[in-house]
Amino acid sequence: MIDVDNIIRQLKFDEKELVTAVAQDYETGEVLMLAHMNAESIRRTIETGQAVYWSRSRKKLWRKGEESGNVQKVKEFLIDCDGDAILLKVQQIGGAACHTGHRSCFYRKIENGGLAEVAPRVFDPAIIYKKEENIE
Amino acid sequence: MIDVDNIIRQLKFDEKELVTAVAQDYETGEVLMLAHMNAESIRRTIETGQAVYWSRSRKKLWRKGEESGNVQKVKEFLIDCDGDAILLKVQQIGGAACHTGHRSCFYRKIENGGLAEVAPRVFDPAIIYKKEENIE
Repeated sequence: MIDVDNIIRQLKFDEKELVTAVAQDYETGEVLMLAHMNAESIRRTIETGQAVYWSRSRKKLWRKGEESGNVQKVKEFLIDCDGDAILLKVQQIGGAACHTGHRSCFYRKIENGGLAEVAPRVFDPAIIYKKEENIE
Repeated sequence: MIDVDNIIRQLKFDEKELVTAVAQDYETGEVLMLAHMNAESIRRTIETGQAVYWSRSRKKLWRKGEESGNVQKVKEFLIDCDGDAILLKVQQIGGAACHTGHRSCFYRKIENGGLAEVAPRVFDPAIIYKKEENIE
């Protein structure tokens, strides 16, 4: 049994009662996305083993993949030195974390003086992400 | 020549004029730390090739490693889908990003019901980080 209350007590939530969470692919190490978590989303993440964030735009809990099916199974749950950031090492179901259809939300990098896409989409977001728009 | 102004224009800064930055080891893929950047720190990061953050506690630019020597050489600079997060793939000089002496700030994970350290320190922070306390 994980003492969730004890873990939550060790975190430093900001003035919006959130901490930042980074999701990283457990196998490849690719950084997939960045989102936010409140205490309740942390509790549900630990209890269900699936990433649950706090959607700042919708102002409600957001089980990642609840509409697209692209859920994140949490393999490791780490916290940083000062307790205001979480690192989730996840198995990304469906092959992509990003609502754009890219595997990672970080699909653009500085190259040749501007921004270039570093990876193609792995699916057409119009098909899979009908409703799960960018709700981070 | 990188058009820094054009890149900054594509970012969405929060109400404190910051975006969140994740630093990842370029070679191992290890997530090292999370910090924040304003427009000027982004400009200096791009122009110098070394990670420059905005210290929220000191309210000033913070060239990572300026006091400890543990600078971060930026190998890749990525931005996420909605432009409010940056991923820096870096070469971490000195072997450790964290002021505690750990290689990564994410050195604790949930294990056996509580939090356990996943990696030992790589140096004694009392020696190297005399002044570079936790200034994130």
